[in-house]
Amino acid sequence: MGSEGFDKLSLDSIRQTLIGLEDTIIFSLIARAKFPLNSPAYDPNANKNVSFPGSLMEFLVKGAEAVQSQGGRYQTPEEVPFFPDGLPSAIICTSNCLQILPPAAASISVNKNIWDIYVNQFLPLLAAKGDDGNYALAVASDLVCLQAISRRIHYGKYVAEVKFRGAPEAYTAAIRAKDRDALMNMLTDEKVEAMVKQRVQKKAMVFGQEVTLSVTSNNSSNYKVDPSLVYRLYDEWIIPLTKEVEVQYLLRRLD
Amino acid sequence: MGSEGFDKLSLDSIRQTLIGLEDTIIFSLIARAKFPLNSPAYDPNANKNVSFPGSLMEFLVKGAEAVQSQGGRYQTPEEVPFFPDGLPSAIICTSNCLQILPPAAASISVNKNIWDIYVNQFLPLLAAKGDDGNYALAVASDLVCLQAISRRIHYGKYVAEVKFRGAPEAYTAAIRAKDRDALMNMLTDEKVEAMVKQRVQKKAMVFGQEVTLSVTSNNSSNYKVDPSLVYRLYDEWIIPLTKEVEVQYLLRRLD
Repeated sequence: MGSEGFDKLSLDSIRQTLIGLEDTIIFSLIARAKFPLNSPAYDPNANKNVSFPGSLMEFLVKGAEAVQSQGGRYQTPEEVPFFPDGLPSAIICTSNCLQILPPAAASISVNKNIWDIYVNQFLPLLAAKGDDGNYALAVASDLVCLQAISRRIHYGKYVAEVKFRGAPEAYTAAIRAKDRDALMNMLTDEKVEAMVKQRVQKKAMVFGQEVTLSVTSNNSSNYKVDPSLVYRLYDEWIIPLTKEVEVQYLLRRLD
Repeated sequence: MGSEGFDKLSLDSIRQTLIGLEDTIIFSLIARAKFPLNSPAYDPNANKNVSFPGSLMEFLVKGAEAVQSQGGRYQTPEEVPFFPDGLPSAIICTSNCLQILPPAAASISVNKNIWDIYVNQFLPLLAAKGDDGNYALAVASDLVCLQAISRRIHYGKYVAEVKFRGAPEAYTAAIRAKDRDALMNMLTDEKVEAMVKQRVQKKAMVFGQEVTLSVTSNNSSNYKVDPSLVYRLYDEWIIPLTKEVEVQYLLRRLD
């Protein structure tokens, strides 16, 4: 196990990674919010004169994932493609090929939920109504958002492993009993969750303000992304889906 | 000419776009700085067991551009590919297909300079020494940086058009005389340039701070990207290359 493997299973290192991903997620949301909704990009029935099935977003994300997969992106359990079927193999192998979690970890994915929530629930709240024709740019921003959110959520595999190692007997009993509720209960720390949600809201205020040379405006109407929407993203979607990944991981931990 | 075409030739709208791109550029730099340099990704002689020529970065950027081009990315003069040779055509045409600048605008590109400066001069200053194996992720971040910087610089085409329209006689004389120095002189506003450089430095301080619930640290050692490096990026590279695009545009404005 290399130093990276070691880092990914230290609680402090995991915490630092998750905190860093908060910034990445908020930056990516601000970048996407610069474009209007551009709904034809997400509509499988729009652009029907073109030569691919599905929406333009599906075409662009699938194509981008194929290239990144060849470049070695999906060799760690926290990097999960949205279109795993027919994904080309990596043509390069880096130190990331080291497996530090049980093989079952690789197959756990909640990306279908993430995609569905992002496109159908979250994006219409994030982006203003309208269409500026910049579909390829807007979707490139979507992909950065989706990848950051997905990485954050699937990092739950490491969180679960560390929690398991901290209390193997209690977890083993719940896993053998296939008791999802007990596992969810053991994984939940409401105090920490509340802190995370407050912190991302505060970050959205800091990063989403208009910065000028004269005054730094803190007028709430000027935030580039509504801080309460970032709170809600974590509250309703990111934190619950992370715990779902953790439960799925634990249920297969003893396979 | 649609409303977008109109907007892109209003000075106020151009200014807002350029200011917004400052945020995008700084966010992308912060995201890249989370990875170490990962130099084998940029070395054409590394990874020689794999089936593509050039560096992994070239492979990944070229592949990403091919997908985005099919999705319609490169249909505006400010979006310029780094690998234009053999780039597949767009399979979708949005409102962006409207040409609001003379056709010569499309061919103007300083992307070779941008790439060279980014990889060889800027990146070693931005990223810490080291190799964490996350090449595909680091290069995906590089692409976001490169595209934001390139868009900012090639937006100079609109800047030049607006300046030309504001003083057509003076510009026409310099263009006919092929007087680059006179053009550069007319395009230069040192007061505005100084303001831009100060503003991006301030933005790097605001966006690059550690945000915690207790205190927001403003300790300079904690910035995620050195604010003076962002100042320098604009001072030495972005502003001069934008003016180079403006001069090249003007020299072909009367073709």
